Amino acid sequence: MTANFIKNKVLKILAFTVLLLLSKSVVAQSHPRLVLTKKGVAEIKDNLGKAPLFDSSLQDVKKEVDAEIILGIEVPVPKDFSGGYTHERHKKNFLIMQKAGFLYQILGDKKYAVYVKDMLMAYTKLYPTLPLHPQERSYARGKLFWQALNDANWLVYASQAYDCVYDFIGGNDRAIIEKELFRPFADFISIGSPQFFNRVHNHSTWGNVAVGMIALVMDDAELLDRALNGLKEDGLPAGMKDNDGGLIKQEGQKTGFLANVDEPFSPDGYYNEGPYYQRYAMYPFLVFAEALQNTKPDLKIFEYRNGILIKSVYALLNLTNSKGEFFPLNDGQKGMSYYSRELVSSVDIAYLYGNKDTSLLSIAEKQGRVQLDNAGMAVALAVKKKLAKPFTKKSIDLSDGQDGNQGGVAVIRNKSKDDELTLVMKYTSQGSSHGHFDKLSFSYYNNSSEILQDYGLARFVNIEQKGGGNYLKENETWAKQTIAHNTIIQNETSHFKGDFEIGDKFSSKRYFFDASNPKIQIISATEDNAYPDTKMHRTMVLLEVDGYEKPLLLDIFQVKSKRPNQYDLPFYYLGQMMTENFKYETPKSLEPLGKSFGYEHLWKEGFGKAGVENTKFSWLDNGSFYTLTSATEQGDELLLARLGANDPNFNLRRDAGLIIRKKNTDKATYINVIETHGSYSPVTEVAINASSSVTAVEKVYEDESYIGVSIKNKNGSSFLFVLATANNSVSEKHILEIKGTIYSWVGAYFSKLIK
Amino acid sequence: MTANFIKNKVLKILAFTVLLLLSKSVVAQSHPRLVLTKKGVAEIKDNLGKAPLFDSSLQDVKKEVDAEIILGIEVPVPKDFSGGYTHERHKKNFLIMQKAGFLYQILGDKKYAVYVKDMLMAYTKLYPTLPLHPQERSYARGKLFWQALNDANWLVYASQAYDCVYDFIGGNDRAIIEKELFRPFADFISIGSPQFFNRVHNHSTWGNVAVGMIALVMDDAELLDRALNGLKEDGLPAGMKDNDGGLIKQEGQKTGFLANVDEPFSPDGYYNEGPYYQRYAMYPFLVFAEALQNTKPDLKIFEYRNGILIKSVYALLNLTNSKGEFFPLNDGQKGMSYYSRELVSSVDIAYLYGNKDTSLLSIAEKQGRVQLDNAGMAVALAVKKKLAKPFTKKSIDLSDGQDGNQGGVAVIRNKSKDDELTLVMKYTSQGSSHGHFDKLSFSYYNNSSEILQDYGLARFVNIEQKGGGNYLKENETWAKQTIAHNTIIQNETSHFKGDFEIGDKFSSKRYFFDASNPKIQIISATEDNAYPDTKMHRTMVLLEVDGYEKPLLLDIFQVKSKRPNQYDLPFYYLGQMMTENFKYETPKSLEPLGKSFGYEHLWKEGFGKAGVENTKFSWLDNGSFYTLTSATEQGDELLLARLGANDPNFNLRRDAGLIIRKKNTDKATYINVIETHGSYSPVTEVAINASSSVTAVEKVYEDESYIGVSIKNKNGSSFLFVLATANNSVSEKHILEIKGTIYSWVGAYFSKLIK
Repeated sequence: MTANFIKNKVLKILAFTVLLLLSKSVVAQSHPRLVLTKKGVAEIKDNLGKAPLFDSSLQDVKKEVDAEIILGIEVPVPKDFSGGYTHERHKKNFLIMQKAGFLYQILGDKKYAVYVKDMLMAYTKLYPTLPLHPQERSYARGKLFWQALNDANWLVYASQAYDCVYDFIGGNDRAIIEKELFRPFADFISIGSPQFFNRVHNHSTWGNVAVGMIALVMDDAELLDRALNGLKEDGLPAGMKDNDGGLIKQEGQKTGFLANVDEPFSPDGYYNEGPYYQRYAMYPFLVFAEALQNTKPDLKIFEYRNGILIKSVYALLNLTNSKGEFFPLNDGQKGMSYYSRELVSSVDIAYLYGNKDTSLLSIAEKQGRVQLDNAGMAVALAVKKKLAKPFTKKSIDLSDGQDGNQGGVAVIRNKSKDDELTLVMKYTSQGSSHGHFDKLSFSYYNNSSEILQDYGLARFVNIEQKGGGNYLKENETWAKQTIAHNTIIQNETSHFKGDFEIGDKFSSKRYFFDASNPKIQIISATEDNAYPDTKMHRTMVLLEVDGYEKPLLLDIFQVKSKRPNQYDLPFYYLGQMMTENFKYETPKSLEPLGKSFGYEHLWKEGFGKAGVENTKFSWLDNGSFYTLTSATEQGDELLLARLGANDPNFNLRRDAGLIIRKKNTDKATYINVIETHGSYSPVTEVAINASSSVTAVEKVYEDESYIGVSIKNKNGSSFLFVLATANNSVSEKHILEIKGTIYSWVGAYFSKLIK
Repeated sequence: MTANFIKNKVLKILAFTVLLLLSKSVVAQSHPRLVLTKKGVAEIKDNLGKAPLFDSSLQDVKKEVDAEIILGIEVPVPKDFSGGYTHERHKKNFLIMQKAGFLYQILGDKKYAVYVKDMLMAYTKLYPTLPLHPQERSYARGKLFWQALNDANWLVYASQAYDCVYDFIGGNDRAIIEKELFRPFADFISIGSPQFFNRVHNHSTWGNVAVGMIALVMDDAELLDRALNGLKEDGLPAGMKDNDGGLIKQEGQKTGFLANVDEPFSPDGYYNEGPYYQRYAMYPFLVFAEALQNTKPDLKIFEYRNGILIKSVYALLNLTNSKGEFFPLNDGQKGMSYYSRELVSSVDIAYLYGNKDTSLLSIAEKQGRVQLDNAGMAVALAVKKKLAKPFTKKSIDLSDGQDGNQGGVAVIRNKSKDDELTLVMKYTSQGSSHGHFDKLSFSYYNNSSEILQDYGLARFVNIEQKGGGNYLKENETWAKQTIAHNTIIQNETSHFKGDFEIGDKFSSKRYFFDASNPKIQIISATEDNAYPDTKMHRTMVLLEVDGYEKPLLLDIFQVKSKRPNQYDLPFYYLGQMMTENFKYETPKSLEPLGKSFGYEHLWKEGFGKAGVENTKFSWLDNGSFYTLTSATEQGDELLLARLGANDPNFNLRRDAGLIIRKKNTDKATYINVIETHGSYSPVTEVAINASSSVTAVEKVYEDESYIGVSIKNKNGSSFLFVLATANNSVSEKHILEIKGTIYSWVGAYFSKLIK
């Protein structure tokens, strides 16, 4: 989010705006025109009964809406936080209203149109009477909801409902509805809430799209321009922040929908806030794109920035585990998946408006439903024709940053039959207000089971009892802090001192990525700004080596500072500790591990020191054994930590971590191998391959230019891995003597299995 | 296990023995004769290819055995605990040997016979050289394994293998094998290990059956008598205990297989050690019964004690949750289920030798495999004919004790569509050496999710790294202690002071059970001996009441003592605490809750006091909300406990509990309502019905003869439940005035919904 992107993009956006003004289609089109179109509805009607996935989705929606119609319309005076009655009621209203509109168009039954009209009239009556929402927590309060964000949600859906019943309502009522409800609504969430509307963030994306959608329905060119290009003047001071600590305005910041397409997406389609918010924002991004495509096909919005919107759907699908759950990078709720309604519509739209990629159909099949528009029908018809192909998630390295040079996220997968080990390494930019201070952190999966976890967010989304369903204090004090992640913490202080404004200026850098050899897949990245005068370099290799039942994860983490520091590297495992090879004490009473930066939330359950040999630590989770073998130095401290200290409301899970601590050193090299092995079933009660096969992990070489690691197997073989740490060229020639043997190779790394 | 059972059973057993001596079939029969028979094999061969479940089971077994044959025979010198190499190898040997024997009979391929013969010869060579197993932990060490129990397992399976290849081996080799291996093996685990063989326990059942099976193969009447009726003289001192603290010998104790059928099973088929060990013992019980039926049909073993062996299979199937997992009463490993090999054979045998109950076929279908004998073939053929009917688990009250008068276990289920809430209330006798000190405790399930859990055992069965796969110290110090269970603890001291010998003398008593009305299902039981001079009475009601989304569990626990005491009632919930209505403090550092009886393993995470209103406590687990509403009195203490203190090897799960503490009172009445409500999905992020509908739980009446409880709903209705606590007759008339209203009814309880 550097200011200089503007210079690069000005021409492109100018061109786009001109194109928009030239477009003549706005006035001429009939309704519906956004997601559904007259032509599209006719096609859908023709195909009813021919595409089971569409038909069953239609029946499900009909059943849901019919039940709501019987219950009657309720439009209560706003009062509650999310999860509370009035919040959930208004949320349900917009979701049902949109569906009722679609049903009216597809089924032609007027009761749906009447329902939408009556509800809109009820809102038309209520809205002008509303002050700001009584809950004062948000930096941008709404009227129907406690935050303008949810008001924008309402308008995105209500616009579609209105579009569907536009002709049915008649001119007189339309005039009232537009004057009393939609126009002031759109003004309130834009001009009335510039701190919400005029930024680059998932919030403003919703705001922009809400205004854009109603603009398209009402043929309001001025509103549409506001939606696409933001407010010309917002009176906001630069440096202003929202209540999550996120920056609202940078000097010279471009705003509006197009800026929100330009800036947060990398050329690979990664969205800087992370997959959880990318999922949340995908709906407005894509539904508005669909509406623009339907109303202004000349704009070719789906080709904008080399088809970035479609690309982003693929990025998102790749950011899931084997169960389709998004990796909880930054603020992310675990369990959110591509089964969400946002991804149903995204996949459908990406299919129809992308390249009719048949691998998307297999995702749609799993989702088991489609959206009720032409995209959904296209998917359902193709599924019926058995065109679906598997969606294969390969190892990828998704760049972050508008120009793709602000680090990234690597997802490295090793598949065999139905089993998949997945490494997710994060070396992105800060990630906006939802970013965590976790440079070079990682999480690791065995199919959909977490081996080493990213904590995710500290929030019970929409559960009113827990802090109104909003972010909890512990999201700041724990979840965002560095110690909550599997990465290095210097002197018990979070990266960038946990300061968003500093963190927002920097990103980690890719050093090397290579997934071309499925047996040795590497991601290597550096971070020079998390701590001034300290350079960090982490290299993670997913290795398939003969003699091991399953792949190994090799983790090399080098830190170098101008002065001596303390370093902590935690590994947050799940399940039950099995065995370890170091002596430790368990205290009689538990004390927190520290006072700040998240350390205050960890109990010190155990404390030991590494011996002369490698440190070994095994655990059992979900029927699988895991062993971490660490090339520790004698005297390294080993802390057994348990989350839950200073948690007066029991907001945190009681998860466990092993922390490897190196003290008073200006140089620290962590070398760890994580082994997945064996199985245990409580039904057969047989433990297979329950013990580690690694007998030693050794740093065999390290200087300014190379690091070499040897992993020894109990079968006598040893695996050597050498990385050139100062030259990442794939064509460079290297010659290096390690322990009396001379190795020569071309490229950034060398590996060899010595039997 | 009172001594006086002998008087009752002497005649029956005498008669049985006479019958046995009269039976002429022993000498005449050919081999195989145990589980497979000549005639049976012919029938199986006729039906190959006609019963897919049998065919696929046969293929699976063939694949497994073929792979082992390729690996070759290994008979290592015994060295390890369970989970270790030599243990697992010998275990695999007997399992594969038996399967190879079956394959030889069914497929006629001599390679299987050769394999069995070679392995038996290898054991014949090894066995005479073996001293006692080097691991000294067991009260009855084996030779192949660290405990004689596992040696007995070996012989149960090896006898079957030998039976299958008996004719193939030839007389000379048979003579050697029997002289050097089987006869001394049988003598060692019986005469040589009387403390193991001559008792009533799952261990001795295995021992008796092992000796009995080889006796039947070898036509050895003396060994068979030893198996059926135990050692006449064992030289064991009365009061001797095993290394789990279980009593080995009571004065006048009858022993042998028949005593093990007589004594631990109640007339309802409940096995006093609990379902986990019942499952373990079912295999020898039933496979020996099958062998006796095949060799001595005149004995009608399946009709013995009114068909107790078949009944016990039903009891076991009923002691499972919706996923088929056994309730972990007493020592029980969670996750063990009717998918285990022991239950596959039990279900098959119960089908063929019972009443060909087609509901058992649906369990066999779920199991997806059958055993390779006539029982398995009968099941497979019936499944092929689509005879399977659903196995419906109804609410039941299973008596405990030989005569059914030593308390019991009630399993109360409320089903609606695919959802089932299940209450398991335990008011049994001690349960032998695997019993827990948990009189009147309960666990509660939402389908297969635990709402309020029984901890189960503290052991990682067969995982060598964890204490050799054996019981951990924490099984004694935590899992068996009363505080580990959802029941009352007086003065921080376990029931019977945690003394097995005292506990073994007593059982709780059923007061009332009635599941005839699916909307009001009641179990009520008393316990007068857990604490001298203290009487406890717990009544649990699974209630379906209008105005609640799902059934309520009403829990009335009355305690009366001759002197003032402190009482604790814990509720071990899972998942995350949502909300509570009492003030509490969370300490800055954690201290254990107490010093002994398991209290030393609990951290005191929070501490509060009940206010004037009911205490409310809600949590979220696995997508469901739960709320406990407790009619506490002001000043009752509320402790938020977390397991894990004094756990130096991290053997315990970090589970949580809420403990309601009443101090310094000679009378305590706990009234709790547990409400299951709503849902939450991380995909839709919608929280439905997240708040409790109970507005008040009130004790409206209590005297020596009655207790009355009112549960108020937020809709204004209230539900009244009155129990006659001094007269459990279903025909007694009662008239009672409660708060100015006179109620009259017939029977032990009265209930009314007042709208």
